[in-house]
Amino acid sequence: MASLKVPTSVPEPYEDAEQLKKAFAGWGTNEALIIQILAHRNAAQRKLIRETYAAAYGEDLLKDLDAELSSNFQRAVLLWTLSPAERDAYLLNEATKRLTSSNWVILEIACTRSSDDLFKARQAYHARYKKSLEEDVAYHTTGDFRKLLVPLVTAFRYEGEEVNMTLARKEANILHEKISDKAYNDEELIRIISTRSKAQLNATFNHYLDQHGCEINKDLETDSDDEYLKLLSAAIECLKTPEKYFEKVLRLGIKGTGTDEWDLTRVVTTRAEVDMERIKEEYQKRNSVPLDRAIAGDTSGDYERMLLALIGHGDA
Amino acid sequence: MASLKVPTSVPEPYEDAEQLKKAFAGWGTNEALIIQILAHRNAAQRKLIRETYAAAYGEDLLKDLDAELSSNFQRAVLLWTLSPAERDAYLLNEATKRLTSSNWVILEIACTRSSDDLFKARQAYHARYKKSLEEDVAYHTTGDFRKLLVPLVTAFRYEGEEVNMTLARKEANILHEKISDKAYNDEELIRIISTRSKAQLNATFNHYLDQHGCEINKDLETDSDDEYLKLLSAAIECLKTPEKYFEKVLRLGIKGTGTDEWDLTRVVTTRAEVDMERIKEEYQKRNSVPLDRAIAGDTSGDYERMLLALIGHGDA
Repeated sequence: MASLKVPTSVPEPYEDAEQLKKAFAGWGTNEALIIQILAHRNAAQRKLIRETYAAAYGEDLLKDLDAELSSNFQRAVLLWTLSPAERDAYLLNEATKRLTSSNWVILEIACTRSSDDLFKARQAYHARYKKSLEEDVAYHTTGDFRKLLVPLVTAFRYEGEEVNMTLARKEANILHEKISDKAYNDEELIRIISTRSKAQLNATFNHYLDQHGCEINKDLETDSDDEYLKLLSAAIECLKTPEKYFEKVLRLGIKGTGTDEWDLTRVVTTRAEVDMERIKEEYQKRNSVPLDRAIAGDTSGDYERMLLALIGHGDA
Repeated sequence: MASLKVPTSVPEPYEDAEQLKKAFAGWGTNEALIIQILAHRNAAQRKLIRETYAAAYGEDLLKDLDAELSSNFQRAVLLWTLSPAERDAYLLNEATKRLTSSNWVILEIACTRSSDDLFKARQAYHARYKKSLEEDVAYHTTGDFRKLLVPLVTAFRYEGEEVNMTLARKEANILHEKISDKAYNDEELIRIISTRSKAQLNATFNHYLDQHGCEINKDLETDSDDEYLKLLSAAIECLKTPEKYFEKVLRLGIKGTGTDEWDLTRVVTTRAEVDMERIKEEYQKRNSVPLDRAIAGDTSGDYERMLLALIGHGDA
């Protein structure tokens, strides 16, 4: 499912660290070498490289990358080099700050990560920001947005496959009733979406479709100007079919007037090691163009090369 | 701070397991031996005894204890023998079931455990009940109770000592304003109580006292018949001074018409390895009677002996 390509024979961490140090040396930076190394190492390997680099040179690899690189390429390399938990914590913190605030990023991370991974992001948030994720999310949101987002980021959903069909029927009816009444911020609706396991929700959404003849998402797409409603619908998409959610973020990020590089970088760096192959399939199916060609057509230079490497282009 | 007394030389787990097996054998059960062993072993040692017992006899020590013992003594021994996380998960599950439901137990566990311990209880809940704690709490509560309890059980508070004094002043004023307006279920008030670190809340409550001349708890004790208000006040007590909260539970459990053995058993088994010495001090201070004498006067037999052993009476 991951698109990341790691060579069959990986150099020792000290060799990678040495090569990276060389890439920074002298006039100019050897971006190709940075991509060749970092974009082809998995999370555990990148962690070892950072540790070895710090031990060998007394410097933080991330700080050196930050100093040597710039613009979208810099952001892609930095995000990618972080561990998944640190990266999520970083993105979440950014999303709660005024100038970079984004309910979308909060929702995306809360609903597409596994329960353990979301919890690890909360631990990394403590370690780095000396406060809790939920206090920042609750502090920076109000009203319906807070009512929806706080339970989503604090959830620790059960991850077993067990499903209670009676409950699924009952809760599908509750969801249908609330949506019919346009009670989108109803606390029962939020309770179901924010606490049930993904397997249980899947059964509930299937029952909703069987019983009421329409996908729950479609029933929510009645008013495309309502930001809260769009978030609620996206939450359901993230929980049900994350690959479709990510395909849409990529599609909207690439299409239209100018590329949204933040969305593009975030999705590629956070999914390359998880489910990027599934997302690429979805992209091809929906757009009749492979994702790599779409990215190549819309980006350039080292940034383009970095993204393409992460989505599995070329050899490791 | 713990009252548990462990002997300086602890027998090997297989010896303890063997002795326990003997205590169950033949006519009658040797309760004194069970107390002598289990009430003087810490969580890691009890875990080893259970594992060794299962390996040696192919039976679950907890099931054998359940079959051999009865009544309050049985409940005390079973709760104590569980690991802290399993025990909290068990108590929380009980508290969400109709016949044994208790918002108080949910609140107590959510607000007096460390962030890591509360999270471990959530993991143990998954493992044992095949669902999440928050889905049961949310499902079994409604209205203001749900609004308060769900964020409390899902919190993963920051535990560092860092305090933001500007924020403390600001939020003390928010709390005072909401309480003055009798807006006890206000979402800002719940946000502050349920997300801030205990150190931060302590600074906030101190500022409240300095600025408004009254402890925040006292300002909440205006209507002693309002169950929600009592819970909110108890949450603040648990977060601020858990030893005082537990002293009160013990005092009310022991005093009055008949003893509330469930409260007594729960507090003793959950605090013996944590802060029972502090609770005993508070008890003596508030009641002018040592806790062990109060318990001895109100309970009897093996149950009494078990509780007294856990609060540090006699030799290990």
